[in-house]
Amino acid sequence: MNLAKVTGTLVASRKEPSMEGMKFLVLRQLDAANSETGGYVVAVDAVGAGVGEVVMYASGSSARQTEMTKDRPCDAVVMAIVDTWELDGETVYTK
Amino acid sequence: MNLAKVTGTLVASRKEPSMEGMKFLVLRQLDAANSETGGYVVAVDAVGAGVGEVVMYASGSSARQTEMTKDRPCDAVVMAIVDTWELDGETVYTK
Amino acid sequence: MNLAKVTGTLVASRKEPSMEGMKFLVLRQLDAANSETGGYVVAVDAVGAGVGEVVMYASGSSARQTEMTKDRPCDAVVMAIVDTWELDGETVYTK
Amino acid sequence: MNLAKVTGTLVASRKEPSMEGMKFLVLRQLDAANSETGGYVVAVDAVGAGVGEVVMYASGSSARQTEMTKDRPCDAVVMAIVDTWELDGETVYTK
Amino acid sequence: MNLAKVTGTLVASRKEPSMEGMKFLVLRQLDAANSETGGYVVAVDAVGAGVGEVVMYASGSSARQTEMTKDRPCDAVVMAIVDTWELDGETVYTK
Repeated sequence: MNLAKVTGTLVASRKEPSMEGMKFLVLRQLDAANSETGGYVVAVDAVGAGVGEVVMYASGSSARQTEMTKDRPCDAVVMAIVDTWELDGETVYTK
Repeated sequence: MNLAKVTGTLVASRKEPSMEGMKFLVLRQLDAANSETGGYVVAVDAVGAGVGEVVMYASGSSARQTEMTKDRPCDAVVMAIVDTWELDGETVYTK
Repeated sequence: MNLAKVTGTLVASRKEPSMEGMKFLVLRQLDAANSETGGYVVAVDAVGAGVGEVVMYASGSSARQTEMTKDRPCDAVVMAIVDTWELDGETVYTK
Repeated sequence: MNLAKVTGTLVASRKEPSMEGMKFLVLRQLDAANSETGGYVVAVDAVGAGVGEVVMYASGSSARQTEMTKDRPCDAVVMAIVDTWELDGETVYTK
Repeated sequence: MNLAKVTGTLVASRKEPSMEGMKFLVLRQLDAANSETGGYVVAVDAVGAGVGEVVMYASGSSARQTEMTKDRPCDAVVMAIVDTWELDGETVYTK
């Protein structure tokens, strides 16, 4: 999984029917030190994440292993809201 | 999913039989600020997208989770036409 | 899918038994402007492509969605020979 | 598979229910010479790895081929703790 | 598939039980001109490759399509030992 910050939302009214009702989040990718990498991904929200929150997302076929995304053309899903992580014994981020 | 602009079409008459009837779109990839990244991908169109439109596409096995692409050798599918997205509270793109 | 030019062939007599009889093509990857990117991939040929031809290939699990490659340890397959594509209204390549 | 050093842990109390009870490790990726590449990944621990240990992890759908991660939205799993590897006849790393 | 040179072996005694008995090879990735790219991957050996040999490996879910790796957390498998390949009509490598 990778870390990201939810920085926006996306609306697409014309889409594959199985994607109806999904909430699309625009994520800015973070490195392990909690700095933005410059990369982004649009992910389906499976956990009720809001703009500004730091999340974990899963990619590829693993993005379809939630009830919301099963069998859908979804290759990225927010599957956790991060509380905290530490590196080398120091806390890098706390919600 | 990633964002892209439909910039062209591709014709391939000799192909895996299961790909008959598919419409191939040449997509230029966009970053979250709506700038072209220099990358591209050829994707099957599942939503009736036209040249000039901004779309979302799914990659990998998720690209086979539409009726049109199921069980086919397709690793990228346009699964939504984007209406609008915003970042940090500002609208980046509106159709 | 991505674009590539068939630039060579590869022979491997000792291989996973399920790969017997496959034709391996060495592909140089192309960008959307038909220039070589410097990247390459070895792909199984599912459409009878020859050296010098411009093709589309599918990667990952989608590379196993042809009769020839089904259930085999193959992560790239040539699934179409390209006739032509255009970008921004201009023809980039014609066979 | 790729090599990495376990450098931290991550806590996420709000997550996809199927991820309950998983231990999330923050891995710094290593190259074949045992130097950090600058990349990272968050992986589920399937083997009881601890901070400071050098491990192998599997990505993508292969990350779901452990009892712990089966059918879960997990795209990276620590599936081995490395004892030693050698390159060109010289030992690069020993636990 | 990609090309690589087998440059070493790796031992991991503590691992996911389904990986027992697998032989792990450290591969240095090659480009189409048979030069090392600087990248590496650890792959399971499905064909009896030895250090110094040039091989092809498959990645992702395709790495699980051998008898040895089926349903295992393995994302890279050596599935062929390369005899020779040519590019633009010239032989690049012969075993």
